[in-house]
Amino acid sequence: MSIALPPEVSERALQAFREVVGSDHVLTDPDQMREFRDPFWHLDWDDYEACAVVQPASVEEIQAIVRLANEHRVPLWTTSQGRNNGYGGSSPRVRGSVVVNLRRMNRVLTIDEELGFAEVEPGVSWFDLYSEIQARGYRLMLSCPDLGWGSVIGNTLDHGCTYLPYGVDFSAPCGLEVVLANGELLRTGMGAMPGNRAWHVYKRSLGPTLDQLFMQSNYGIVTKMGLWLMPYPETYMPIWVRAWNNDDLAPVIDTLRRLSLDDTIRMIPQVGNTIGFASFMTRRAQWWDGDGPIPDAVLDRMARELEVGRWMMRAALYGDEAVVDHRFAKVKAAFERIPGVEVWGTKTTPENAKNLTHPAERIQGGVPGLELNAMTGWYGGAEGSGGHVGFSPVAPLTGRDALTMRDLMRGLIEGKANLDYLGALLVVNARSFVHITLVVFDAANAQQARGAYDTSKLLVTEAAKHGYGEYRAHLDFMDLAADQYSFGDHAYRRFAETIKDAVDPNGILAPGKQGIWPASMRDGR
Amino acid sequence: MSIALPPEVSERALQAFREVVGSDHVLTDPDQMREFRDPFWHLDWDDYEACAVVQPASVEEIQAIVRLANEHRVPLWTTSQGRNNGYGGSSPRVRGSVVVNLRRMNRVLTIDEELGFAEVEPGVSWFDLYSEIQARGYRLMLSCPDLGWGSVIGNTLDHGCTYLPYGVDFSAPCGLEVVLANGELLRTGMGAMPGNRAWHVYKRSLGPTLDQLFMQSNYGIVTKMGLWLMPYPETYMPIWVRAWNNDDLAPVIDTLRRLSLDDTIRMIPQVGNTIGFASFMTRRAQWWDGDGPIPDAVLDRMARELEVGRWMMRAALYGDEAVVDHRFAKVKAAFERIPGVEVWGTKTTPENAKNLTHPAERIQGGVPGLELNAMTGWYGGAEGSGGHVGFSPVAPLTGRDALTMRDLMRGLIEGKANLDYLGALLVVNARSFVHITLVVFDAANAQQARGAYDTSKLLVTEAAKHGYGEYRAHLDFMDLAADQYSFGDHAYRRFAETIKDAVDPNGILAPGKQGIWPASMRDGR
Repeated sequence: MSIALPPEVSERALQAFREVVGSDHVLTDPDQMREFRDPFWHLDWDDYEACAVVQPASVEEIQAIVRLANEHRVPLWTTSQGRNNGYGGSSPRVRGSVVVNLRRMNRVLTIDEELGFAEVEPGVSWFDLYSEIQARGYRLMLSCPDLGWGSVIGNTLDHGCTYLPYGVDFSAPCGLEVVLANGELLRTGMGAMPGNRAWHVYKRSLGPTLDQLFMQSNYGIVTKMGLWLMPYPETYMPIWVRAWNNDDLAPVIDTLRRLSLDDTIRMIPQVGNTIGFASFMTRRAQWWDGDGPIPDAVLDRMARELEVGRWMMRAALYGDEAVVDHRFAKVKAAFERIPGVEVWGTKTTPENAKNLTHPAERIQGGVPGLELNAMTGWYGGAEGSGGHVGFSPVAPLTGRDALTMRDLMRGLIEGKANLDYLGALLVVNARSFVHITLVVFDAANAQQARGAYDTSKLLVTEAAKHGYGEYRAHLDFMDLAADQYSFGDHAYRRFAETIKDAVDPNGILAPGKQGIWPASMRDGR
Repeated sequence: MSIALPPEVSERALQAFREVVGSDHVLTDPDQMREFRDPFWHLDWDDYEACAVVQPASVEEIQAIVRLANEHRVPLWTTSQGRNNGYGGSSPRVRGSVVVNLRRMNRVLTIDEELGFAEVEPGVSWFDLYSEIQARGYRLMLSCPDLGWGSVIGNTLDHGCTYLPYGVDFSAPCGLEVVLANGELLRTGMGAMPGNRAWHVYKRSLGPTLDQLFMQSNYGIVTKMGLWLMPYPETYMPIWVRAWNNDDLAPVIDTLRRLSLDDTIRMIPQVGNTIGFASFMTRRAQWWDGDGPIPDAVLDRMARELEVGRWMMRAALYGDEAVVDHRFAKVKAAFERIPGVEVWGTKTTPENAKNLTHPAERIQGGVPGLELNAMTGWYGGAEGSGGHVGFSPVAPLTGRDALTMRDLMRGLIEGKANLDYLGALLVVNARSFVHITLVVFDAANAQQARGAYDTSKLLVTEAAKHGYGEYRAHLDFMDLAADQYSFGDHAYRRFAETIKDAVDPNGILAPGKQGIWPASMRDGR
């Protein structure tokens, strides 16, 4: 999908935007705009090129931009930091859209230590919020994702996982402020009542609750969000579970389900394969220079030499020391019933999390970082041209599903794309997991990149045959991923698009986001 | 709001409904319909009279009814069991509506012991689901509300509180099937993909998540829902905290916030005043036959003689015995720092919860009951004509807010309605509470009943001046409660009604529910 805006229309719109935000904040120079392009999309491909990037500094400027976009019929694509890497970065779904990037709106508006929440603007990154909590000396932990450069709001709106207890079922966000497509300003939940101090502490509205309607959607531009912060527990204990056999994945997952259901483990564990760990610790070339994917014998050697096993789980316990001690003993006993599996952990404090050596132990301790971004360098590493596509289906949390998913992913990625299988199971609650498949490739190699995207599309349809659907999709196969949700002859999509047409009749906000198109653009479906 | 359907139109519609569900399942006889009338609305008042009750037996019959309602322009009002007592029972907002009551759809479709969830139809009550779990011998606890006769789905859709750990932030429901106003069938979340087994275990969609959009709303008729069930913990321990002074409420709430934030208490505690407990243990006439509300000196005597204090908190701990022991010691030490406050509890097992004496200890143990319904008999008890209105604002979980709320409620209920103040703080998460004010009265006494409803309306506007909004409103002041959510010149309501008009253009589904009206009926606002 590409819009055919006559150049004079875009130019009139951009001129109007300049009057709102100032000329310095409307970027059209290709060098300035590169930063807001999907970093893993091959440089010669122009499928998702924006025509400009506009950076407003306030809610009022966003309202003005939205009104002008209606007037000029210019599609907007909102990004916060624009770090949606693996899913399209800051690129718009529709070529020629104007990216509205919100980095300049970067104020931490509130941190309430008594009730444990913050209120932030979209430009606030995980690093920013963490620093602000530290600067104020508050004893509050931030549930953060693997990479700290992203926006708290942007990551949340795309259903990004975070790893501390409030990451379970994405439970940290509470209460949004949203600029609607008509320029009106709405607050959700209790925030819809002027002066109501329960906006960021109570999760529902009187009437239908809208928070999740504005996530992974194109119904509005979120300008403020509440986020719950966890008071420091007495003890923080990162733990590790290592399994040496590829098929140990099944009993590891079944054990984890039982320990999560009974609340022994309450956070988001990540179970990664050998390459998952190797990819941020080492370079691929150290291990394998043959044709095609790394074979099992080499994987076994990597597992031993890096001491990461064929599958390793990172997790953590939080709470009073007595409770953590009890739980660790239980976790250790449960997993070590699986022959050969090892469990260890180190008790520390939230205050000390920032001093831990392993980046995962810092992240689970609420200290954001960037170390895990090294994964992307598995291919094309020396030139820094590595990229990845996130293919991320959801499954019930059973060992059977974990093996089915693993075999399906590995078979197609190795067999069709001739690439390595890098898998991490994010256990988002006690009943389900998201299998993050990082399809890693050299983005400078057009053929390899094309193969990675094509294979990802094949994965979408093959996974759907097994009843597995994506939790979040890359721009390049958003429509295909959405197509799989076809119950009732696509009743879900039809309903979502009925809402879209009603609340954004000109279709100016993020057309095509997660497969939801405005009426004017869905003829060719 | 009352519709002026010509009698021949209603009759044609009812005849069409009879052809769908059979004549026996279209009730028009006043004696049969009485059961589906707000039981606490004075018998001489006809503001919320339905013209008929239709009881379909299947999704297909609901689809047919919805299509016919569009054809005949007949407003429908859906109830499941119809036990929304205190908020309007099974009565419709718009006089002359047809009540679609779903009691006949009462199948428990799935109970999955491994993953801990059930799938139910709307006619399944808490009693039904509990019995079915017991009958199958599954070791799963059901987070249930105070009264077990209500529908699992109906209660959930109206944001009804349940008390076990999965009651926190209403976190048990997962995945809906919905008949839309156009007769289409939609499934939310992963259920939108045919054959996807993560429907009831993963909480979000690819794209905007709709589950909460169908709660407290009039966008569809929910026909199936997933509900999480908690595996039996080793130990279940109901606990009690008793405070003798009226102002102890503040330190009790502040202590509870700290113990909830640090995860020591993880369920929905209820902090009730003397009359709250007295009302289901005794009759009002035993204590007071003077004019007006019961004075403090008598309340102090009741507190002592019933051993319920001026405020008493019911709560519970769940988990391994070692963890429960640790937590109980911590709870006891924390609350007993408040002078005069006493804490006690009894360790038992989930299996034994059904044998406990106190109804609250059974409810917190997942065993539904009806004993607490006796509260309603505080006035008009001997004749069984007692009624109540639920006035239920939300506040941040602080001692300051608890006292402000208490003084506001008590002042107006005693001062304006000349009635007793019956208050219970439901602590729905670690950061907020819903102050359930049961405005109790004799429904057979028209003057007293009118006073109770009028006072409730006054409470709505007075609470809003303090920034407190209702979490759920009675039919009689739904519009007034919704009016208070006026941020952005009522942007929330306008957005909700924009969706309403798009997904239900004829406005046939529950017009006026929680203040959301279709275009054709909002002229007079």
